[in-house]
Amino acid sequence: MTPGRLYLVPAPLDFGCDTLTPLQDVMPAGTLQAAARLTHWICENAKTARAYLKRIDAVVPLAAPLQAQSLQELPREIHKKGDHAAPFDARPLLAPLREGQDMGLLSEAGMPAVADPGASVVRAAHLLGAEVVPLVGPASLLLALAASGLNGQNFAFVGYLPQDAQARRQRILELEALALKTGQTQLFIETPYRNAAVLQALVQALRPATRLAVARGLTLQGASVRSDSVKAWRERPAPQDERAPAVFAIGP
Amino acid sequence: MTPGRLYLVPAPLDFGCDTLTPLQDVMPAGTLQAAARLTHWICENAKTARAYLKRIDAVVPLAAPLQAQSLQELPREIHKKGDHAAPFDARPLLAPLREGQDMGLLSEAGMPAVADPGASVVRAAHLLGAEVVPLVGPASLLLALAASGLNGQNFAFVGYLPQDAQARRQRILELEALALKTGQTQLFIETPYRNAAVLQALVQALRPATRLAVARGLTLQGASVRSDSVKAWRERPAPQDERAPAVFAIGP
Repeated sequence: MTPGRLYLVPAPLDFGCDTLTPLQDVMPAGTLQAAARLTHWICENAKTARAYLKRIDAVVPLAAPLQAQSLQELPREIHKKGDHAAPFDARPLLAPLREGQDMGLLSEAGMPAVADPGASVVRAAHLLGAEVVPLVGPASLLLALAASGLNGQNFAFVGYLPQDAQARRQRILELEALALKTGQTQLFIETPYRNAAVLQALVQALRPATRLAVARGLTLQGASVRSDSVKAWRERPAPQDERAPAVFAIGP
Repeated sequence: MTPGRLYLVPAPLDFGCDTLTPLQDVMPAGTLQAAARLTHWICENAKTARAYLKRIDAVVPLAAPLQAQSLQELPREIHKKGDHAAPFDARPLLAPLREGQDMGLLSEAGMPAVADPGASVVRAAHLLGAEVVPLVGPASLLLALAASGLNGQNFAFVGYLPQDAQARRQRILELEALALKTGQTQLFIETPYRNAAVLQALVQALRPATRLAVARGLTLQGASVRSDSVKAWRERPAPQDERAPAVFAIGP
């Protein structure tokens, strides 16, 4: 039997925010239509996935009522450690796919399997010989990179920085050395409540001439992007919003 | 005077293709509406930019007729060498922005300033103290990464491989060593007519257990993503379409 297709369904970037972005502002009609046809899902959290499906339903009616949709959650260790530190066999989650059913993979915000869990599900779909169809939607990393003015023709995303102050400083210096040596922009993210601490650590540790960009709440109300030399960041510090998710980028 | 805003306007990925993607399939209504309001543009090529604006006009009427729009092209050396090998001062291009006019930055396909020229324009806008607003649209790199099943929590995009066969093989081995050592997915692109040569070089040079993904023509008719071990690629070679743009990814 020909397996179904695995659709990678992006979500808006307003997860956890007070004000929700109108879906049509950030999601193509084609993406919403493809999502509305699906009835079998793999997600990080069934509750927030249902809330998102409800928002889609208000724009493009869902093929099946919410109560009739099947939602399976990714196991906890995948959330915590990522798909690669704790490899697991996602094929059981894809039983409907094997039986010819199309399925959707969803993350809480942005593109599934990018800066988010889900790669193991995509791998399993390839193992089953299923077609994988990524749908267009917002991806905070790419938006932040484009808006930073830093090198977008050579860049790396390295996830989160260490939480320990000494290890974090070490990692910042390592990333700066790499960026200055190779010209490769280094991008990383942080959970909102640590934004201010990370910015402070960056401004203290980096060289004055290094360029530092911080993009906050992209696609959301009050979005901001600042891209400046570390020297300028020192001279004009910026108050940090502790709620909006941030993407940081450094480069020459 | 408060400067205008610089909007980063993505374009569909069908540049140079026979069949055009319906804009609504890949572009949010919000992006098309924001683009339709603009009348001052910086682009790679004025002719293809006009053709794109015509497509937008068919969905959301443009604020000013095409003939009345101002389109400035990025200088040739920026196309060839990138914004970073040949740094140039893009502020003169942004004269309307300085006078309070909103402007749009466009690339031929996908997100401007990502795997494409334009970063120098974004930098110049930051220098002028202008707000930079990235709009949501398709980005082949991110779609390919998500669909590859490779590590999306640590990845790098490194541009093009060298054209010389010996230098290319060297670079492939270097990227593989980095990917296996650090777990960081390595992504690169190629001009369509070299797809087959690059795939052959990869399959010959990489270790059998390394995972290789090739995404072709994403968001277009006949799009495909294959993600497999190099061993499997050797056993089942795939015919390569020499027209569709491809994204390659390698990882453990």
